[in-house]
Amino acid sequence: MSTLIYEYPLNEKCRNYLRLSDLFQQINQCRSLEASGQTVALFKALLDIIELLERCDIRTELAKDLTIEKDKLAAWSEVPGIDTSALDHMQVQLADFSQQLPRAPRFGQLLREDKLLAAVRSRFSIPGGLCSFDVPQLHYWLHQPKANQQQDIDGWLKQLQLLQQGLELLLTLWREVGQFQPLTAHNGFYQDDAANTHIIRVRVPAAQAIYPVVSGNKYRYTIRFMPVDNHEIGNVEFELANIK
Amino acid sequence: MSTLIYEYPLNEKCRNYLRLSDLFQQINQCRSLEASGQTVALFKALLDIIELLERCDIRTELAKDLTIEKDKLAAWSEVPGIDTSALDHMQVQLADFSQQLPRAPRFGQLLREDKLLAAVRSRFSIPGGLCSFDVPQLHYWLHQPKANQQQDIDGWLKQLQLLQQGLELLLTLWREVGQFQPLTAHNGFYQDDAANTHIIRVRVPAAQAIYPVVSGNKYRYTIRFMPVDNHEIGNVEFELANIK
Repeated sequence: MSTLIYEYPLNEKCRNYLRLSDLFQQINQCRSLEASGQTVALFKALLDIIELLERCDIRTELAKDLTIEKDKLAAWSEVPGIDTSALDHMQVQLADFSQQLPRAPRFGQLLREDKLLAAVRSRFSIPGGLCSFDVPQLHYWLHQPKANQQQDIDGWLKQLQLLQQGLELLLTLWREVGQFQPLTAHNGFYQDDAANTHIIRVRVPAAQAIYPVVSGNKYRYTIRFMPVDNHEIGNVEFELANIK
Repeated sequence: MSTLIYEYPLNEKCRNYLRLSDLFQQINQCRSLEASGQTVALFKALLDIIELLERCDIRTELAKDLTIEKDKLAAWSEVPGIDTSALDHMQVQLADFSQQLPRAPRFGQLLREDKLLAAVRSRFSIPGGLCSFDVPQLHYWLHQPKANQQQDIDGWLKQLQLLQQGLELLLTLWREVGQFQPLTAHNGFYQDDAANTHIIRVRVPAAQAIYPVVSGNKYRYTIRFMPVDNHEIGNVEFELANIK
């Protein structure tokens, strides 16, 4: 049965992690510019990343969280029958990222100075503001050979590579550990103590015409399931995993 | 030789026409959702159209401009050897639009009331604001079967169809009439009287690493060619067409 996972961050740091990760995913889907329209989506994701990184410098926090994961893995090495070579490899990777991240120049700095990105950014929020008369240099760029465009895109993304890889590694480890538990939301409502949870993950069957609206903080969270088409909500069976 | 055309509007009305036309073109490129990432581009174009239509009601002006074109065509019927059936067909089409447009409900009204579009719109300008925790109903929608998504998109676009068709017809007629003239911009600079021109169209070879920056109003306009890569600009050969 096909399912849908909704992730909800319970603190500001994880909100930034999930937003950035979501934007990186969008970029990966668009970066090869196979179809028209993907350029707009790519610019939107890239500009959003630049803006997020202006507001928060996540290098230190990400390095800290990766170090914590490395230390957790160390405990696994004593478990009998564990694949120690895989474990060692992962620990080396985590140690690498934890060391490189704080030393890296602040992410997004050079992207902010890119002329084309700056021109697109200054007009992006104007409705229809990417016309040839608003940003003629974009119009020129859009009609360049694809190889040239690809080169520019690769150059932009290279500056975010370390961030992207470190973040994806952390979220992968986090997501693998959190086990889903079946639960019932009575009349579509569920609440619980947060108890050091960073992110809650809600899994529901894709065919069910509902979606969860979560609100929460580091102490407590509530999940309210909403019907897509105004039907009665009743009790909702769902699964929940906590990332601590 | 491949060329690039930059269009520049010399009044507010034409600025809206060109912006809307550009957004409709983007929608046409994305509406079949063949590639991932196109959804974001589609939403961006659709939300931009909604916002533009909130600021200006172009029904009356568009109808007036289409009527003017119809009257201009009438003069052609006296030219010997003209294809009168094609001319008649076009005149009927123009008359239809001119009559339907002012009677149509204000464009974009129903789109503004669409629940999903409203939810997406409220978060679109937040960087990374389309995450599953920001707009869970979008996350649900994105994982629906493509046929369902297509149905929603078709429903949204249907409400803009009359506007799109009327606008495209007007711009096609306008663009066909304006003849390109070869000109030289000395040291990359050219200026002229606007003399009732609505839109100027600048055509340059695509291979030339320059783009025009135009500023102007109903009295006067200037074109300044900018080098893409900071080279000396010198004299620039280009072509210009005026739409009056």
